[in-house]
Amino acid sequence: MEGTTMNDRIKSLPLGNVTITDSFWSGYTRLVREVIIPYQWEALNDRVEGAEQSFCLRNFRIAAGLEQGEHHGAVFQDTDVAKWLEAVAYSIETHPDPQLESAADGVIELIAGAQWEDGYINTYFTLIAPERRWKNLTEGHELYTAGHLIEAAVAYYHATGKRRFLDVMVRFADLICDVFGEGEGQIHGYPGHQEIELALVKLYRVTGERRYLDTAKYFIDRRGHKPNYFKEEIQRQDFKSIFGELKDYDPAYSQSHLPVREQESAVGHAVRAMYMYCAMADIAWEYREEELMRACAGLWKNITQKRMYITGSVGSSAFLERFTTDYDLPNDFNYSETCASIGLALFGLRMARMNRDASYMDVVESALYNTILSGISSSGMEFFYVNPLEVWPASCMEHTSRQHVKPVRQKWFGCACCPPNITRTLASLGQYIYGADDRTLYIDLFIAGSAKLELEGQPVTVLLETEFPWKPGFKAHMSLEGGSPVGLALRIPAWAEDYTIRLNGQAVADYRVEKGYAMLEIQAGESTVEVDFSMDAKLVYSHPAVRANVNRMAIVRGPMVYCLEEEDNGDRLCDILVEEGAQLEEQYEPQLLGGIMTVTAPAYRIADDGWEGKLYASIPMQLEPVVLKAVPYCCWGNRRPGEMLVWVRKK
Amino acid sequence: MEGTTMNDRIKSLPLGNVTITDSFWSGYTRLVREVIIPYQWEALNDRVEGAEQSFCLRNFRIAAGLEQGEHHGAVFQDTDVAKWLEAVAYSIETHPDPQLESAADGVIELIAGAQWEDGYINTYFTLIAPERRWKNLTEGHELYTAGHLIEAAVAYYHATGKRRFLDVMVRFADLICDVFGEGEGQIHGYPGHQEIELALVKLYRVTGERRYLDTAKYFIDRRGHKPNYFKEEIQRQDFKSIFGELKDYDPAYSQSHLPVREQESAVGHAVRAMYMYCAMADIAWEYREEELMRACAGLWKNITQKRMYITGSVGSSAFLERFTTDYDLPNDFNYSETCASIGLALFGLRMARMNRDASYMDVVESALYNTILSGISSSGMEFFYVNPLEVWPASCMEHTSRQHVKPVRQKWFGCACCPPNITRTLASLGQYIYGADDRTLYIDLFIAGSAKLELEGQPVTVLLETEFPWKPGFKAHMSLEGGSPVGLALRIPAWAEDYTIRLNGQAVADYRVEKGYAMLEIQAGESTVEVDFSMDAKLVYSHPAVRANVNRMAIVRGPMVYCLEEEDNGDRLCDILVEEGAQLEEQYEPQLLGGIMTVTAPAYRIADDGWEGKLYASIPMQLEPVVLKAVPYCCWGNRRPGEMLVWVRKK
Repeated sequence: MEGTTMNDRIKSLPLGNVTITDSFWSGYTRLVREVIIPYQWEALNDRVEGAEQSFCLRNFRIAAGLEQGEHHGAVFQDTDVAKWLEAVAYSIETHPDPQLESAADGVIELIAGAQWEDGYINTYFTLIAPERRWKNLTEGHELYTAGHLIEAAVAYYHATGKRRFLDVMVRFADLICDVFGEGEGQIHGYPGHQEIELALVKLYRVTGERRYLDTAKYFIDRRGHKPNYFKEEIQRQDFKSIFGELKDYDPAYSQSHLPVREQESAVGHAVRAMYMYCAMADIAWEYREEELMRACAGLWKNITQKRMYITGSVGSSAFLERFTTDYDLPNDFNYSETCASIGLALFGLRMARMNRDASYMDVVESALYNTILSGISSSGMEFFYVNPLEVWPASCMEHTSRQHVKPVRQKWFGCACCPPNITRTLASLGQYIYGADDRTLYIDLFIAGSAKLELEGQPVTVLLETEFPWKPGFKAHMSLEGGSPVGLALRIPAWAEDYTIRLNGQAVADYRVEKGYAMLEIQAGESTVEVDFSMDAKLVYSHPAVRANVNRMAIVRGPMVYCLEEEDNGDRLCDILVEEGAQLEEQYEPQLLGGIMTVTAPAYRIADDGWEGKLYASIPMQLEPVVLKAVPYCCWGNRRPGEMLVWVRKK
Repeated sequence: MEGTTMNDRIKSLPLGNVTITDSFWSGYTRLVREVIIPYQWEALNDRVEGAEQSFCLRNFRIAAGLEQGEHHGAVFQDTDVAKWLEAVAYSIETHPDPQLESAADGVIELIAGAQWEDGYINTYFTLIAPERRWKNLTEGHELYTAGHLIEAAVAYYHATGKRRFLDVMVRFADLICDVFGEGEGQIHGYPGHQEIELALVKLYRVTGERRYLDTAKYFIDRRGHKPNYFKEEIQRQDFKSIFGELKDYDPAYSQSHLPVREQESAVGHAVRAMYMYCAMADIAWEYREEELMRACAGLWKNITQKRMYITGSVGSSAFLERFTTDYDLPNDFNYSETCASIGLALFGLRMARMNRDASYMDVVESALYNTILSGISSSGMEFFYVNPLEVWPASCMEHTSRQHVKPVRQKWFGCACCPPNITRTLASLGQYIYGADDRTLYIDLFIAGSAKLELEGQPVTVLLETEFPWKPGFKAHMSLEGGSPVGLALRIPAWAEDYTIRLNGQAVADYRVEKGYAMLEIQAGESTVEVDFSMDAKLVYSHPAVRANVNRMAIVRGPMVYCLEEEDNGDRLCDILVEEGAQLEEQYEPQLLGGIMTVTAPAYRIADDGWEGKLYASIPMQLEPVVLKAVPYCCWGNRRPGEMLVWVRKK
């Protein structure tokens, strides 16, 4: 049933072939199975006391005619169910759970029951405005919702081999391919929130049905051509707004300001942008289209060289959750949505795999180890949507410009995009670790565990040992059951220094490096590869055009960004100054936050002497020596609420 | 007709008794007469091509039955007319203009024609929702609009001696006193936007009618008592929202969260707060109430020691144009509305005059010389509503969090509170310069011109010569026509150093200082007082708790705050670093911006070397020596659009 074979692209291994036994990550992946998926199941069923109601499953029951009532929740409420099903699929692929699978099967029947005769699925439009189907692409999120359902169905098919959900979504996808396109009587539009495009590519890859791919490409090709579809739609007599205030619609918000191939800067709503770039990469690959690939590479460069936080997050403007302009990276009132970092990781993964270029994985790694993990509490029950790099709780007031910045993680919400997105990301972590083509295994992330695959037609297993990210380096045991040698590509992170490889105890000095990968040949039988590098904590600056960070430095160690918390340093973190050459000390603290590496450094604190009752004055700055202590950014906000700061001021 | 006599309070001189012939200010006051008032007249009449329509006078004509049509514009659109009339009144009091007075008389007849039988005036409710009069105090702005009309009527009576407008507003004020109060059948409410209170005090002072004062006090006393009036009003069955989204109404927004005497911090919408504090000060004075006076002093202290920008502006949050928390003073996405600085000056003037305390005038002076002037362009045709202390034009994008920050002043708008507020402030500048009681003349601001008054029952004239703010010091020639000596109180600004006084050529060493005033005795006949002080440009810090300004310094000279502009320093002002002890040089540049004192200093610029294509890296900071050049903040944005920065980073 597989579509084209793509020997010349690296592909992720099936999740079922990857096992994670990592001391850093296993805590999170266990949380997903044991806490988050069950908790979200209760939430979807409106059984969490004290939490806002989700209405998700009730909407489907009503739409399926099984219950009386009205639709509640957002226009895209169905996606909470979709993302939960997708996470469940990934989870049972690695950790079978018949009870959970049975619950998922029940939900799938609900979805099937809510499907129209013609294939259409969407509880909002079904229950509230069936006559307005496809008439508000600007705000309606029908194609976005369809995309998440299709992603879930593909994942569920991969996990269980059951076709039921896939068949339901194939009927919906067929409808979408009928409704949208260049033909007469078809809608010459595209989604207000991208997502369907990458989902249709997945559906094509699993079914081999070419029209799904073509329709995905149609959406990508059509987008941004003049006149703007949304601007026209909003003007139509029968248009009825869902959210209001559209007279001043900005096409850049939905990346429909220009044909996608002409887009050189990441603009507009960050999640919309990321999902679109993923689809652009997929389409560029499937059609082997260089122009589209160049556009992807240009957008990636713009993001990572001018519009990305050091924590691998994007979206500087809270208003409209969007990109702003080059080097505009404020730390204390940014948005940096968790979902946008997930999108960035998904885009980077596609770029890495099809370009066979390890540099993309540096960004993917940063997004995963910093912002995506920051998005979830150590208990797995609270979440950040917004990921600031500087928090002063007193200023994060309701009814002010900083009300979107939360100093503590929030519980599950009625409208919650990020929590289930984190869940599906953690549940599918395996896809980021390894890649492979027919002959070579790529090791991209240093996460302990094992994998099995076929290379040169023979079974291969790899066992990866590491204490990364606390200790540098890793050991990979390869076991080849056949007689042919195979390739092994080891990612050399940009942040790694003194990178050395030993193969079966022998130093390998003359290995080839291809786009950031050390390329080795592994012979039949058992082999052990030991990789060492150093990743001492260090101070970094931002490009001098980043206004927010001028005269400030951040502490990084490998992919981990560090931050100061009030718990360790007292309040007014703003008054701590550090010197450019300050000596950083690392210490593993097993009792702190589940065991982390902390960093300390000699620093100074500005004294208040003479300032009583004054606000502005010519009082010479007085400094007192202190020792600053930094913890990994991903762990912040798991102790008493307080201030947090990534970019420390320079003495 | 004057109400109580208040011998023990300093009062401003009638504007007609004050002449301004100041090289710094006359340009602005001439603009008001020759450009702004005529331009705003055209705007109110919808005769400005290319500008949004005002509808102001048309609304009144329709309400008066002189024209057919519908109401257009904001719920408080009538206040544009009121503020224009108030400015006209001040202008003709100092510079009679029969043609202008005739136009104003015509407008006053329109207002009279739009008045209901029972005295009510408001074109929005008259034309759109007469049945909802007084039913939406939360948003309706009826009392706010009434207040501005009353202020205009009082000013017009002072200027012309004509009672027509005053009589019209007396009828409206009588209605308000009937409608609101503790009595049965009265509304136990208070305005959603304060303004009526201070207006009723003015009306009481001019008419002697006690019930206006009592109703003003009623509004002040009632405010903030539980249950909250607005929260209750919003819940009523017949309530109909004007702006929408009120379910989460925050009483602090309108300073109705606590009884006013219990308020210790400046909170909520900044203009609402300032107008309320003015009224609190007025009522405290009129009733000689110490508790209310203490509340005023506490709020003043909180504002000026913890919540005020160095430029004399307030309101850190653009969202809801409001205060946030102590020391939260961001520079690049604040609001700092021009109207709020005007309110701060009005509050400070009241506090200075009734406390006979010069320190209040330091803040009034800062608001006037920095933010209020920054609010208007050198042409008089463009305005800033928002007054940032740091502007990077590329980041001030529409549809983002910084869209409220405008890098260039804007033209007159359909809904425009600040432009006419600046106009009435500049037209009434005379009230800030001098104060007097029965025996002593107070000189508060150093603005060249003259004044006539009575002290000890005898005519006195004062002629003030100065080139302030460019040169320090001033000369005052006093002329007493009678035989009694009188008092002269000279404000000693907090920023002045080496303050010396010479009386008729003789140094005065032993003068008494009372709350920041040097107290002199002036004998009959002619006297000359020469005051010298130094006000060298200097670098100041903020209190170390002001996060936004840590490790940064601002240049000030006397009351003038300086800023760097791109025009003089190139872009990326963020990369300019200055040392704590840097030597500042002052130079008067007659050709620049109409003649200003500029300040230069040796500084450094962070170089870009090695940063090509990088966003975060361990590249040691490289500095190149440069000379920074600063111009007065009030002049910024009058050349080519570009970056602007007040708080320069420290080397």
